[in-house]
Parts: sequence; structure tokens; C-alpha cells
Amino acid sequence: MKKKCLSDSHCPIARAYDAIGDWWSLLILSTILLAGARRFGEIQQTLGMARNILSSRLSKLVKNGILIKVPASDGTNYFEYAATEMGEDLLPALVALRQWGERYFFDSNQCRSALVSREKGELIRPVTVCSKAGRELRVSDLKVIERDS
Amino acid sequence: MKKKCLSDSHCPIARAYDAIGDWWSLLILSTILLAGARRFGEIQQTLGMARNILSSRLSKLVKNGILIKVPASDGTNYFEYAATEMGEDLLPALVALRQWGERYFFDSNQCRSALVSREKGELIRPVTVCSKAGRELRVSDLKVIERDS
Repeated sequence: MKKKCLSDSHCPIARAYDAIGDWWSLLILSTILLAGARRFGEIQQTLGMARNILSSRLSKLVKNGILIKVPASDGTNYFEYAATEMGEDLLPALVALRQWGERYFFDSNQCRSALVSREKGELIRPVTVCSKAGRELRVSDLKVIERDS
Repeated sequence: MKKKCLSDSHCPIARAYDAIGDWWSLLILSTILLAGARRFGEIQQTLGMARNILSSRLSKLVKNGILIKVPASDGTNYFEYAATEMGEDLLPALVALRQWGERYFFDSNQCRSALVSREKGELIRPVTVCSKAGRELRVSDLKVIERDS
């Protein structure tokens, strides 16, 4: 489907979509942020996607300020992709999607990757939506309002 | 791009992607969960997408257990779409994407929609990733491991 330009939408999710691109771009970002793949070949191998498609997605993510191209950390002439602060700020969204996938699409005895804290190697908390006072909010506790400012 | 089947992937984000469909499906879910549109015509008008595309995305979301078709709440012969528990569990991911969009794509003086608590009408906390002990974690605090269990 040809993507409608959503950059003028009042909905922040629509604008996020417009900047990130399709869902492959989220998987690419997740591969770089969480799986630690930084070179084109590593990312391509991890995701098993066509090189030309990966190339166009990476270019868009760089153009939109979500990724940055940096010289390879081993001092060779290659380069790597790293997330900018803007890219790293997508972490809660990526982790929340990941936890939802874990909850619904894996049997308890199924081999899978797990996201753990580097320090203690322990699983992290489920990502939740909270009020200012720290109370967990469900869908029925929320509403969208239109506002100026 | 023809979507590769990701349902066998070890990555929970890839499986989530496979179940949800493209990003339009996330926008549809957000429209139902957060904006409160429940009828086909309301959703179509809110998102401004083609009817046949909306129809196929809704069917997939129902087939995969994320949405359910229910009789209209006003007692007419129409029906509405509602999120299942599985669909509602995508709330943290949707809110995190929304907050990222708010942070990067809106000027402070720009008209926009805002997500607030129904009870107090106040803005909610930024969604964060936390350790078991409640400490906020950054990308550098996390790692992905492969495990059986």
C-alpha cells in the first residue's frame, strides 16, 4: 500500500510512523539497539532481508536522525550504524512490543531470546503505563483530548 | 515489500509484527483503544484510509485475536470493533510510540492531541524500561541472551 504522508497528522503515533518508516525499520533498530549488530552485513544476516531493502531503510533512518553512520570501532575502513539519542528514546516502545510478543507467541518451553539487565542478568519488569502518582493505568483509565499548546 | 513470514523467528518483536500486520494496523488499534472510534465508518474517517485496506487490516486483527466484532452498543443492527485482552495489552507499546512522537515531532505551540488520565485529566508519566528493583534502564544497561526455558 502506498503510504499516505502522515507528518501533518495531529496524532503523535502517525508522525512516529512517518519518521520511522515501515515495521522493518523497527526490527532494524531493535537489531542495532538490543542485539548489538552494527554493521550492514551483521544486520542483514540477523534479519535475513534483501540488501537493497535494508539499504533503503537504513538510509531513511539516518536521514531522519534516528541512526548515525560512524567509523568502525575496530579502526578498519568500514563503518557501522549506531542509534542517536532520538533512536535510543524508542527503547520503551521496542521493549513493550517485545514483551507483548513474548507473552503471546512463545510457549513456556520454547527456545527464545530474552532481554535481561547487563548488570545482574535478570529479566526486566513489564513496561506499563502509569499516572503521575505512579498508579498503573488500563485502557479504560485513559482518554485522548485535543488541545492547543 | 513482500513480508517474509516471521512467525518462526526467535525474536519476539518479529512475531509481534507477524501477528499485527503493517503499521496501519497499529494506527487502527490506537484509534479504537485511545480515540474511542469503534465503527468501521468512524475508524475510516479518523485515519482517512481506503475502505478495502481498512477492511483487510481489521479482518487480520480479528483473525489473530487482537480485535473482536461485537454488536453495536446502541442496539442497532450495526457492529463495532473492540480490543480483546490481547489487544489491550498492546497499550504500553502504543503509548510509548505516541510519547516518542510527541517528543520529537511537535513544536511546543503546536495543536495536538494529548493522552490524559480519565480520572484527573492530567498527563501521564513517560513510559520507561525498569529493572526488577525499579531502576530506569538505558540501552547500555540491557542485553539479549538466547535461552531455553
